[in-house]
Amino acid sequence: MNPLIKDIRHNPLLWLLAFVPVLFACDQLKPEAHTLLFVLSVLAIAPLTVLLSHATESVAAKTGDAVGGLLNATLGNLAELIIALAALRAGQYMLVKASMAGAIVTNTLFILGASFLFGGLKYHVQEYNRVSARLQAGLLFLATVALLIPSAVSQADSVAGAAFTQKLSVGLAVLLIVAYGLGMLFSLKTHRELFASVEHAEAGEVPWPIGLALATLAGVTVLVALVSEVFVESVQKAAEAFGMTPAFVGFIIVALVGGVSAMPTAFSGARKNRLDLSVGIALGSASQIALFVAPVLVLVSYFIGPTPMDLRFWPGAVVMILIATLTASLVTNSARSMWFVGVLVLMVYLIFAMTLYLLPPRAQ
Amino acid sequence: MNPLIKDIRHNPLLWLLAFVPVLFACDQLKPEAHTLLFVLSVLAIAPLTVLLSHATESVAAKTGDAVGGLLNATLGNLAELIIALAALRAGQYMLVKASMAGAIVTNTLFILGASFLFGGLKYHVQEYNRVSARLQAGLLFLATVALLIPSAVSQADSVAGAAFTQKLSVGLAVLLIVAYGLGMLFSLKTHRELFASVEHAEAGEVPWPIGLALATLAGVTVLVALVSEVFVESVQKAAEAFGMTPAFVGFIIVALVGGVSAMPTAFSGARKNRLDLSVGIALGSASQIALFVAPVLVLVSYFIGPTPMDLRFWPGAVVMILIATLTASLVTNSARSMWFVGVLVLMVYLIFAMTLYLLPPRAQ
Amino acid sequence: MNPLIKDIRHNPLLWLLAFVPVLFACDQLKPEAHTLLFVLSVLAIAPLTVLLSHATESVAAKTGDAVGGLLNATLGNLAELIIALAALRAGQYMLVKASMAGAIVTNTLFILGASFLFGGLKYHVQEYNRVSARLQAGLLFLATVALLIPSAVSQADSVAGAAFTQKLSVGLAVLLIVAYGLGMLFSLKTHRELFASVEHAEAGEVPWPIGLALATLAGVTVLVALVSEVFVESVQKAAEAFGMTPAFVGFIIVALVGGVSAMPTAFSGARKNRLDLSVGIALGSASQIALFVAPVLVLVSYFIGPTPMDLRFWPGAVVMILIATLTASLVTNSARSMWFVGVLVLMVYLIFAMTLYLLPPRAQ
Repeated sequence: MNPLIKDIRHNPLLWLLAFVPVLFACDQLKPEAHTLLFVLSVLAIAPLTVLLSHATESVAAKTGDAVGGLLNATLGNLAELIIALAALRAGQYMLVKASMAGAIVTNTLFILGASFLFGGLKYHVQEYNRVSARLQAGLLFLATVALLIPSAVSQADSVAGAAFTQKLSVGLAVLLIVAYGLGMLFSLKTHRELFASVEHAEAGEVPWPIGLALATLAGVTVLVALVSEVFVESVQKAAEAFGMTPAFVGFIIVALVGGVSAMPTAFSGARKNRLDLSVGIALGSASQIALFVAPVLVLVSYFIGPTPMDLRFWPGAVVMILIATLTASLVTNSARSMWFVGVLVLMVYLIFAMTLYLLPPRAQ
Repeated sequence: MNPLIKDIRHNPLLWLLAFVPVLFACDQLKPEAHTLLFVLSVLAIAPLTVLLSHATESVAAKTGDAVGGLLNATLGNLAELIIALAALRAGQYMLVKASMAGAIVTNTLFILGASFLFGGLKYHVQEYNRVSARLQAGLLFLATVALLIPSAVSQADSVAGAAFTQKLSVGLAVLLIVAYGLGMLFSLKTHRELFASVEHAEAGEVPWPIGLALATLAGVTVLVALVSEVFVESVQKAAEAFGMTPAFVGFIIVALVGGVSAMPTAFSGARKNRLDLSVGIALGSASQIALFVAPVLVLVSYFIGPTPMDLRFWPGAVVMILIATLTASLVTNSARSMWFVGVLVLMVYLIFAMTLYLLPPRAQ
Repeated sequence: MNPLIKDIRHNPLLWLLAFVPVLFACDQLKPEAHTLLFVLSVLAIAPLTVLLSHATESVAAKTGDAVGGLLNATLGNLAELIIALAALRAGQYMLVKASMAGAIVTNTLFILGASFLFGGLKYHVQEYNRVSARLQAGLLFLATVALLIPSAVSQADSVAGAAFTQKLSVGLAVLLIVAYGLGMLFSLKTHRELFASVEHAEAGEVPWPIGLALATLAGVTVLVALVSEVFVESVQKAAEAFGMTPAFVGFIIVALVGGVSAMPTAFSGARKNRLDLSVGIALGSASQIALFVAPVLVLVSYFIGPTPMDLRFWPGAVVMILIATLTASLVTNSARSMWFVGVLVLMVYLIFAMTLYLLPPRAQ
């Protein structure tokens, strides 16, 4: 039997694929039904990201460890990248930035915290490899510094300020991508023995044959791109209909939709007492977005998009990323987890979600 | 012999109880002598808080470990709560907030630092159980995030901003109380074996009989409430007479008065090489105020007090709480103490006290 | 052979001493050639600071451990102190403060990061004594709090605010010097066994005879003072000619020039797998500047200089010092180093340098 069909049969989340054609039909017939289109696009993106991550892992598994790790590390957040590119082309920079910041925070706090909680409800105390956690926390810290400095150092009200922010953003983007590349060299090549358990643990599912994997990768990428266009068009108006603030939508909703593919693996890893896997997914994904996806978007914005995008985030978002990074550093410092650690981390996420939900739109 | 009388005879601090009737007499005869009333009320509150904490511990000792722990955890800062309620009823929200922030900082820096210093002057290197210290530091961190976010995310100048802050404060208060409750479940029930040495160590004094303890608890609570009324009425005018800024009074004086009952146990614990006890008192008390007393006051302010109180603190106070929490995290990370660690922590407290003492009143 | 001549023959950096007479000649003949004078003074200061630090270490080696440690600790940054005094007398407070902040950041990030990188390129994993690193990080943290609080607590626009900042600065300066003194008592006397490996490791070079050392100390101090005058006079105009912002010059150029003497020892220590030495130099020098040199300058400014100088730094500088301190705390927490740790630390420094280079002059 085709492994793709088999996967779909065994994974109820993939049954949502039925919503992909429904969405395209609706978009043709009722292009004004923003709320309906928004709900359908969320339902359609979720299973597509699952397929995308499975296809990426399958290609990675076939191409050997070093190249595979590289592939996983660059395509692991392909869904977030495609959604963000759609928003970038539409000139919705606020949404791009909110979803980047939200993805960092969601991975660092929600996926990490929920993994600790789910694991802790089953096991009294769990231990994990802290070298990998420290590397990711270190990379996240660097990215946070890069996001913090432009706002801390200047008040970019003036024209000179805007030009400064733009030039600095390009420099920082290049720097972060270089750091990300060196980090891969470190973890996949020179010091890979320190990260052994994490690499090994990722072989959670049976990989697909390479042909199927590449075809799925190509096909699903196109589908995600098409669905993302509808999603980006409908999200703001749908948010108003639901009474949600734009910040809440970008930071929480889009980030949760984009991260849904990582959750099953992270949570089941925790339930199987393989916290290395969960921590690797949560922090690895966050640092990948901060050091690779976001900088790439800045550079790409010079070619697509109405004007160049900078790396200057809304101060509230910078504070949240900073707190998320600090939380990850403090929490992974002991390399032990118990259920209450998960509660603490989730509580920080809840504080953010509550604040963004209540925040009056003007203040953002 | 009555254990209460025996205690009074052996503890010179309790001799100050003589000032309780003197205060009430003065308040009747000379209600305008604010400075005198302030001094007398400070002298009267100090021994009452000692009695209150001894009575609470005696009730806790009689009711078994779990309930006792619960009692200690909720009534341990009863004196601070009563003083704050008096200030709340008088509508002095600035004083309430300054004394809450001050109590967190005083416990985290002054009591912790002085314990390290006193212990370190006697012992070369002291070790302590760091699981408990980490739990309290984690709770404090959560509370700091909750206090930081409203100020970081919005500029509540407008009417919309004030409504937002108010709604957010209620949500955060509920969240913090839930986190505090789960923290007790964790430390008293599911993972109590990790906290063993701290629990055991608290049996420092001979407990009173339950009847005496309950009667003292009730009687002293009423006395503290009455004295607090005089204290709150007189404190601002007395501060002016002494040339102190209101911030210094709330942050330093009120917090030191409210925390005086915890100091003898914490300091003597350090001198007996039982730093677990000192760290538990200092950080436990701070996290109790941040996650229980302050949120309860926000919720209670809807029933008493002229208008609801929010959780929005003066930015300087938020920075001080943040630094205090960071200091506690860094310092308890190694689970070892030497005299110079105490000096460093006390120096941070001194920097705060000096700044508040010199701060021109308008800037607060 | 005279050990001084021998040193000069073996150390190519000392050949730059030839630029000292050239500089003085130029200053007489072409006092308007600011760019030339700037370049010459940089070339002349570098070898002088090397001689200064060798002379200090030789005196320290002869006077026994405790006094020697004291001497090293107070005269270790003599070059920075003399340059700053020249700027202070010229009333260039912005330059003084930028070079102090820059020296802290350069030591903490550039020298530490480069040591980790150079060591890591030769050794797979390096371990070092973390007690000393923690002490220095703790002192740096205290200094950061002292620099942070005045800006965080007040808006010193008004006259009252300026008076407050001035009084507070004197108080904080005294406090920091006391903390620094107690830190020396701790590391050189009461707990010196914990720091053993660092102390021992500093004996890297053959000490000079005491007479030569004292004579060199006196003579070179005078020379550095004279060169510094030219440097301070020419630096701003030369910076304009090079298209550099004043912040970049103070923070990066002056700090690198002042710190050049520490680099050979720190880097060769790392290459010899004696990271204790490198970490001790980097963090020890940073905390010495923050807790001794900067406070002394504040106090000295009451006697020389047009008006008293305060401890209030440009907010961007405070953020950078804060991030540098946090980075040092996080990185030295594990007491292990690999090449990528060095990369991360250097990247933070690069972010700062890039930001300051691009920053429009008005915003500083």
